[in-house]
Amino acid sequence: MRRVPVLAINFKAYDTAIGRSALNIGRAAERVYKEFLGSVQVIVAPPFTELRTLAESLEIPVFAQHADPVEPGARTGSIPPEAIKEAGARGFLANHSERKLRLDEILFLTRRARALGLATLVCASEPEEAAAISVLDPDMIAVEPPELIGTGIAVSRAKPEVVTRSVSLIRKYNEKVTILTGAGISSAEDAEAAVLLGTSGVLVSSAVMKSKEPERVINSMARAMVRAIERLGPSLGSS
Amino acid sequence: MRRVPVLAINFKAYDTAIGRSALNIGRAAERVYKEFLGSVQVIVAPPFTELRTLAESLEIPVFAQHADPVEPGARTGSIPPEAIKEAGARGFLANHSERKLRLDEILFLTRRARALGLATLVCASEPEEAAAISVLDPDMIAVEPPELIGTGIAVSRAKPEVVTRSVSLIRKYNEKVTILTGAGISSAEDAEAAVLLGTSGVLVSSAVMKSKEPERVINSMARAMVRAIERLGPSLGSS
Amino acid sequence: MRRVPVLAINFKAYDTAIGRSALNIGRAAERVYKEFLGSVQVIVAPPFTELRTLAESLEIPVFAQHADPVEPGARTGSIPPEAIKEAGARGFLANHSERKLRLDEILFLTRRARALGLATLVCASEPEEAAAISVLDPDMIAVEPPELIGTGIAVSRAKPEVVTRSVSLIRKYNEKVTILTGAGISSAEDAEAAVLLGTSGVLVSSAVMKSKEPERVINSMARAMVRAIERLGPSLGSS
Amino acid sequence: MRRVPVLAINFKAYDTAIGRSALNIGRAAERVYKEFLGSVQVIVAPPFTELRTLAESLEIPVFAQHADPVEPGARTGSIPPEAIKEAGARGFLANHSERKLRLDEILFLTRRARALGLATLVCASEPEEAAAISVLDPDMIAVEPPELIGTGIAVSRAKPEVVTRSVSLIRKYNEKVTILTGAGISSAEDAEAAVLLGTSGVLVSSAVMKSKEPERVINSMARAMVRAIERLGPSLGSS
Repeated sequence: MRRVPVLAINFKAYDTAIGRSALNIGRAAERVYKEFLGSVQVIVAPPFTELRTLAESLEIPVFAQHADPVEPGARTGSIPPEAIKEAGARGFLANHSERKLRLDEILFLTRRARALGLATLVCASEPEEAAAISVLDPDMIAVEPPELIGTGIAVSRAKPEVVTRSVSLIRKYNEKVTILTGAGISSAEDAEAAVLLGTSGVLVSSAVMKSKEPERVINSMARAMVRAIERLGPSLGSS
Repeated sequence: MRRVPVLAINFKAYDTAIGRSALNIGRAAERVYKEFLGSVQVIVAPPFTELRTLAESLEIPVFAQHADPVEPGARTGSIPPEAIKEAGARGFLANHSERKLRLDEILFLTRRARALGLATLVCASEPEEAAAISVLDPDMIAVEPPELIGTGIAVSRAKPEVVTRSVSLIRKYNEKVTILTGAGISSAEDAEAAVLLGTSGVLVSSAVMKSKEPERVINSMARAMVRAIERLGPSLGSS
Repeated sequence: MRRVPVLAINFKAYDTAIGRSALNIGRAAERVYKEFLGSVQVIVAPPFTELRTLAESLEIPVFAQHADPVEPGARTGSIPPEAIKEAGARGFLANHSERKLRLDEILFLTRRARALGLATLVCASEPEEAAAISVLDPDMIAVEPPELIGTGIAVSRAKPEVVTRSVSLIRKYNEKVTILTGAGISSAEDAEAAVLLGTSGVLVSSAVMKSKEPERVINSMARAMVRAIERLGPSLGSS
Repeated sequence: MRRVPVLAINFKAYDTAIGRSALNIGRAAERVYKEFLGSVQVIVAPPFTELRTLAESLEIPVFAQHADPVEPGARTGSIPPEAIKEAGARGFLANHSERKLRLDEILFLTRRARALGLATLVCASEPEEAAAISVLDPDMIAVEPPELIGTGIAVSRAKPEVVTRSVSLIRKYNEKVTILTGAGISSAEDAEAAVLLGTSGVLVSSAVMKSKEPERVINSMARAMVRAIERLGPSLGSS
């Protein structure tokens, strides 16, 4: 059985991530998902303030960009995993390089997410960090060298060894976690390279959020990943 | 001209602050507002994930509980003031003792809020902190000794001197900022005492959020404050 | 070959940790080390402000209690590992529950320490956290359930399963890291239990720092660990 | 009576700030102090690890670069004001743009310092922040626009209006706090301008710490400030 490639879109706090534009990009992502008949998994991660609207409007999984490592209660300004679930989201990102967490907080969040039935996509800036995270057994790990984030220089093409080393290090400790490639993913070729290097897909942001044609960008990346998976053949599959 | 007393409700991250219950409490607050024909100002502050729903459903002002001191852009997991405004909120709390901020961050947020037309309610744990905050000219300051938060022991009755000292210290630096009393406010008497001590109202949380009859609690506090203002007479008014 | 048990003393910021008293406790620790002719390893960890004095005065290894995950340069108020080395220390603690670090910071520090020839003693609050840390390959890991720190209730006697589970989890990922038991270690019996449960020694603090006879406490713990190691016999050794 | 100008040297964590070099620069600063027969106040602020050595070796005041806003006790890795005092220092910097603090922490530290007889030099990044800090009544405030720190472009010459606006804003709230100019101060002219703009001196760092002739730099700045004060005449004095 072959894995379905993953295309996760981090909306960050871009102007296009708030209000009507967020919903429009969410709908574009959903159209791409439907066009490929489920042969690619598309995830959207809007800001907290748009979470419920997108979760209620879309069929594809909506993730939060972060969760606060706290229990519900007297925690002004915090969003515990329970609030994310209640808003209809299916999971959350954690430890993105723009919102790094303490190790004990990542542990709290992966554990709590499991208990609540939420998926976790934990980011790592480099292979060794990814390896340590893999021990905590999140659902997905995205390896994103922060120096490439937002540059348009894709890690999968500029530093393929970071991707392959991440995969081999992570697999020493965790056989099943889904591995994504992030940072600088801008084109169909970048997404294709991510799959050919042995990961299950990509975590993208500015390439979609700053584009005048986000749907076209999402579509071309999805198409490239589906093709790359096909090319790898039935026996291989991705990590 | 007499000031209208303020009743601000911080939903925090209580179980009752998420989902359908949040909207129900918001509607209860609105009913109280309407019953008193605008002679009391009622503000509700739900978590980020409920902000848009409440802002779209209610006429009374909805505030966020926090704002991240960042500009829109590549800031995963952050909620800039712009996202709060776009969600339809009229302002935000900042520097609550459960989410303290650096001084430069409070400055960033009060300034940005002014530029966006958002109101700010900045919390202080003690009179001296409130005095320093008053220099930054927020719209409202709530003085909340953290040791009383959630205890049901109201600062306005257990430590009235903290309230009066806050008022006199703040007024040395800022003549017009609205001053609220917070921490432990549980009853109509506590709210009344807050007004009689010279502040413009209260910031409450657990007394409402953990109550089985939140509307009754809100109603009785509103009524007590309206009466207290009347008793102070036309010439006095509150701070 | 048998391992030498480790007795690491975290001075924290107790009154007894500053000034003349810090040096006195350091000297007491050194006398114990000499009395046992090197059959126990004694480490002292004073505050930054006492680091150089103790390092220059003692032969036993002196560790810092923390290091800032930064490079030397324009970092006001920070203490990079280089400053710790220059002060004559042999290593540092990191990620203590009173000074938790982000995962990427622990990675930075373990890597930098290796490059500088400094030893690292990384703390973990529970077995899963310890396991993730073991992937980063520090020299020592101390498992300290924070709820027992400072209580006088030793983890090695109150929650022996936390210790044994830590050892077995860590050993899945790292065969050689030295494992210490921490939190609530107060007596010779607690230290003995730590060794008998399969760890290489203890990380203690209040039992020494708040004692009127710190040397007696250190001595009795050292003696108990040496005996426990002997009892385990030549073939077993500790983790 | 005329004020004595202040030349405060922040060693930061530069390579030259640790070990023998730190003491050498401290001694150079002391020689300058003595050359001007006390008509300039020279303060040195080395890292925590060098604090005691410099405090014990020098007659001029030695400050820490930071203090942790905690009481002595079980606080691994923290340096409370008490430890700074015990090391022989006379005060500490706080809220430097490289180590920003929460408002409540600045309040804790200024208050604790007063109780211990330690002086405080609190940094601010801009005039409004400085004004809020002045309400907490520290001994000195240094206004340092962070965008100029380390550039060699002196705020006193590139943005004189920031300095004069800081002085006038601070003086609305606090008549006696000593005001220093910081950020980019590199030359005797920069130091002179700081005094002529109405402040009591400068907070410098890289110009001294990265110089091959630190004593010459310190000397020329001291001389320029003494002359500027003389030029202002007996009636004027500085802020």
